[in-house]
Amino acid sequence: MLIIGELINGMYANIALALKERDKKVIQSCALEQVACGADALDISCGPASKNPLIDLPWLVEVVGEVTDKPLCLDSSKPQVIAEGLKAAKNPTIINSTTADIEKLQILLPLAKQYKSKLIGIAIDSKGIPQNKDQRLELAARILEQAGQSGFALEDLYLDPIVMPVNVAQNQIRDILETIAEFKMISSPHGKTVIGLSNISQGAKNRSLINRTFLTMAVASGLDSAILDPKDKELMDTLITAELILNKNIYCDSYLEAYRKR
Amino acid sequence: MLIIGELINGMYANIALALKERDKKVIQSCALEQVACGADALDISCGPASKNPLIDLPWLVEVVGEVTDKPLCLDSSKPQVIAEGLKAAKNPTIINSTTADIEKLQILLPLAKQYKSKLIGIAIDSKGIPQNKDQRLELAARILEQAGQSGFALEDLYLDPIVMPVNVAQNQIRDILETIAEFKMISSPHGKTVIGLSNISQGAKNRSLINRTFLTMAVASGLDSAILDPKDKELMDTLITAELILNKNIYCDSYLEAYRKR
Repeated sequence: MLIIGELINGMYANIALALKERDKKVIQSCALEQVACGADALDISCGPASKNPLIDLPWLVEVVGEVTDKPLCLDSSKPQVIAEGLKAAKNPTIINSTTADIEKLQILLPLAKQYKSKLIGIAIDSKGIPQNKDQRLELAARILEQAGQSGFALEDLYLDPIVMPVNVAQNQIRDILETIAEFKMISSPHGKTVIGLSNISQGAKNRSLINRTFLTMAVASGLDSAILDPKDKELMDTLITAELILNKNIYCDSYLEAYRKR
Repeated sequence: MLIIGELINGMYANIALALKERDKKVIQSCALEQVACGADALDISCGPASKNPLIDLPWLVEVVGEVTDKPLCLDSSKPQVIAEGLKAAKNPTIINSTTADIEKLQILLPLAKQYKSKLIGIAIDSKGIPQNKDQRLELAARILEQAGQSGFALEDLYLDPIVMPVNVAQNQIRDILETIAEFKMISSPHGKTVIGLSNISQGAKNRSLINRTFLTMAVASGLDSAILDPKDKELMDTLITAELILNKNIYCDSYLEAYRKR
């Protein structure tokens, strides 16, 4: 499981302030804390309040790159912002994200190839959020087709079914779990799968409990990667246990500690 | 989800002592506590130390029946002990359990019909514990065939795939989860499914964490019933949340409290 830490995001007040004041220490300690808690990669987003993402994202990328060589997940809906982030990055990169819109795929797939970046493809397009499994699979198939045509390695593609909040779209959650399993059936070699975990509990009361329960199900459905809060210890304990149960790590009595000492 | 409380079992010291001293209060308060925590039914077992299960099981059944009318799950490997329990029971009953051995099925299926009891059928026979999914399905098919031949209603049959401890048979756990889903594909009308949850963490260190993580996966695989400790609040919170995510209960912010007030 590729664990992508979600905490360097301008939608959080501490990061927004640090970004505004160019306070490197706040950003860098947030990066190091997440790595210490088990993050394999770090999402980097200026957030919606940034007025200068073309300058802010590369600054974040450089600042984080000074303290860790973990892959950075460049998070923006604007391809031009992604391009500036890629130029600035010394770390390996993951583009987060392209939609299934052809015009976006035709910009981001070549960019990903040029920078040897992995790419997250979200099962959504300009027509809106899919409402069922068939629509999600159709959008994923379009991303896979474009990736194949442009010679992009499918192993470097992470398909995202779009997780909806349980309090908004409760009847879609089972579909989303099944989509994670079925994304693999429609590609060869397999594309990988990723989710933005926290979406499931947006606006809900018991957020951590809902997050870890849904993550357990997603792992059982074959999930390869999740963007999540690695500082949520109960969530990480659950994730490590889910992978243990599915025989991805060898059992020992102190398997939680063993995983953390990897 | 039919939640069967596991705590009235002579393998626990307090129950063994109460059984020996015919202390009704201990047994009855254990029954009422489990019901208060959400148990829909109660497993009743004399445990391995009982020298007189033919007398002890009926006594437990009568004592519990004085304080609750919840279904009782008569737990013994000896058909004669089950028969005595059935005779004593005023509550609805579930026989726990038959194996896939023909001679046992031919005793317990007629007994279940006679007493209008439900029946747990374990995917095991005198040859030993199955080692993979195909063996489990074969054993379940034999139980289903015998039930069909004897006119036993398949809706009243609970198939148990046998959960193995993760520290003993880690490579079998995914198979067991898939078996839960596939048991339903081999019967029409569907047989139900049940697990003895605590087996998964037998001898392990983080028992509650392993139990609730496995239970989440089993619920996503379509599990209908589990024998578990309803006094484990984190386990029950997780179970309620798993069912919420799968749209079995309507979302509200205080869904945990709402479920408990049913």
